[in-house]
Amino acid sequence: MSTNRVGKQSISLNNAPVIVSSACVAGKKEGEGPLKHTFDRVENDAFFGKKTWEQAESTMVTETIERAIKKAGMQTTDIDCLYGGDLLNQCIGASFGVRKLNIPFYGVYGACSTMAESLSLGAMMIDGGYAQSCAVFTSSHFSTAERQYRFPLEYGSVRPPAAQWTVTGCGCLILSNNAEKRNKVCVTGLTTGKIVDLGITDANNMGAAMAPAAYETLRTHFVDFCRKPSDYDLIITGDLGYVGHKIVKDLFKKSGVNLNNFTDCGLLVYDRQKQGVNSGGSGCGCSAVTLAGHILSEMRKGTYKRVLFAATGALLSPTSSAQGESIPGICHAAVLEVM
Amino acid sequence: MSTNRVGKQSISLNNAPVIVSSACVAGKKEGEGPLKHTFDRVENDAFFGKKTWEQAESTMVTETIERAIKKAGMQTTDIDCLYGGDLLNQCIGASFGVRKLNIPFYGVYGACSTMAESLSLGAMMIDGGYAQSCAVFTSSHFSTAERQYRFPLEYGSVRPPAAQWTVTGCGCLILSNNAEKRNKVCVTGLTTGKIVDLGITDANNMGAAMAPAAYETLRTHFVDFCRKPSDYDLIITGDLGYVGHKIVKDLFKKSGVNLNNFTDCGLLVYDRQKQGVNSGGSGCGCSAVTLAGHILSEMRKGTYKRVLFAATGALLSPTSSAQGESIPGICHAAVLEVM
Repeated sequence: MSTNRVGKQSISLNNAPVIVSSACVAGKKEGEGPLKHTFDRVENDAFFGKKTWEQAESTMVTETIERAIKKAGMQTTDIDCLYGGDLLNQCIGASFGVRKLNIPFYGVYGACSTMAESLSLGAMMIDGGYAQSCAVFTSSHFSTAERQYRFPLEYGSVRPPAAQWTVTGCGCLILSNNAEKRNKVCVTGLTTGKIVDLGITDANNMGAAMAPAAYETLRTHFVDFCRKPSDYDLIITGDLGYVGHKIVKDLFKKSGVNLNNFTDCGLLVYDRQKQGVNSGGSGCGCSAVTLAGHILSEMRKGTYKRVLFAATGALLSPTSSAQGESIPGICHAAVLEVM
Repeated sequence: MSTNRVGKQSISLNNAPVIVSSACVAGKKEGEGPLKHTFDRVENDAFFGKKTWEQAESTMVTETIERAIKKAGMQTTDIDCLYGGDLLNQCIGASFGVRKLNIPFYGVYGACSTMAESLSLGAMMIDGGYAQSCAVFTSSHFSTAERQYRFPLEYGSVRPPAAQWTVTGCGCLILSNNAEKRNKVCVTGLTTGKIVDLGITDANNMGAAMAPAAYETLRTHFVDFCRKPSDYDLIITGDLGYVGHKIVKDLFKKSGVNLNNFTDCGLLVYDRQKQGVNSGGSGCGCSAVTLAGHILSEMRKGTYKRVLFAATGALLSPTSSAQGESIPGICHAAVLEVM
């Protein structure tokens, strides 16, 4: 047994689960950004036609999952299991979003690393033969996150330079055990993150708080798989933004490694200069819509053959911050390959 | 592939991961209850020597995991992966509890179903050869839960009859891929729960909200595995309490099935009459300490050979309740067998 372990904290998925479809729905601001053409739908109403932002977020979740299932040519009854979560207290974005789908559900909490965590768990379930098809998803909503983590929007608080903008968006992938893998994007490896906390306490500087975890996971990944960064066409973290991305790049540089093929979903999802998002995008939805839209469509087009997707999470709460705690970071990585 | 699927929503674990050890730490009130002799340690200080209840909860988490690892004769470096979560916003009980352990970590959110969810995910990871050893855990703390979900303790609110008492406790199991399974408790099957929401909106009646999910998971489990309730020595739900337990029993009775070997962790953990806990115990810690202590020790003694452990969760938040939403319930089940 344990034939799938690779190195210290990685896993080889020998049956290479296929990403048979993906879908993403995003908000107005995201729909005005550089990735707008990669979204399945842009919703200009922040309420998604509902009465509250929380209901908006779960409505977006339901729609995105249903779109992904439909794009795979499947029915909800074809999906053996759902993995997902979000940033809201008690993950109500996910729970209420999947409530009516009648699909077995494992709730996940990894803050903004949730897309990579759900993808990892779903891929193992398929690879091991415990499911034929899984849906993995996550979401965030600017307005639900702002009022929960920071201030009521009505206050109009000034945002410091290192602050990031929570993406309103949901991404969902359908993973399947298809035997035919040629020209398909498959999940072939995983590196599970450990919590890294170097004592950052500024909840307006998540990029800096998460960067050490991203560095540790990427570094361990290369060692575990005996690969170098140039073995990937693209290395992309979740939502480090400008500040965190620079820290990771610098940490690698100090260890003698130049990451030339390294970017971050938080840098791609908005036009930082024109859209006034300070250090970039953040939130579970940031990496979710970038993966489900941009990254996978570029892989299908042949731009990238092998991508290392490493979503990052800051495992704080307003309570832990108020109690003076520092911010624990985590980063999970998944290898995506066109076979 | 998918040779491990059983029926509609169940899984057979053909390599039968072994529960090599378990540990549980509980609070003062739990230490005065009927299960007191099954806890590894009872802490009479609600703060666990820390300044806040949240820090107390994560301290309890760290201690319990370390105890379980030690009882297995292992080091933290022997554990490939941790699965766990809790009830606190952004699951800080778990995140801060595992922060210093330096073990790869998948955060889980299933409300009070978390023990069964973590156990399911960890067991699949071991069974599929993705890890040699995993730790699965969850916790709750009366004081952190009360102030987050209900009222500040200082208000001294009167509790309605259907209310339950959140257990202060943490339970952790170590799962391993040991080849030697004789006389060991193993995990041999899983049924993944779907969300069931029949419209209950009373957040003081969680038992009633979760009972339909428990009924659906148990019913599906028996169909999927072609078993009847009497094929188990014990069927035990997570924290339905008196009200929810009675509803599940009645639902089975109406479908012509008498559950004579069916109890609930929420009924065992306190003396309902003497300890003033109304409908019984609740919280993630309720099923966690009952499993890690009482159930496993009785299985090791030979009292039970095959147990169906089905932890139940109410996936609400104070925000969803304030917005008039009903309470989605979920229940995941795991088959534990002495080989």
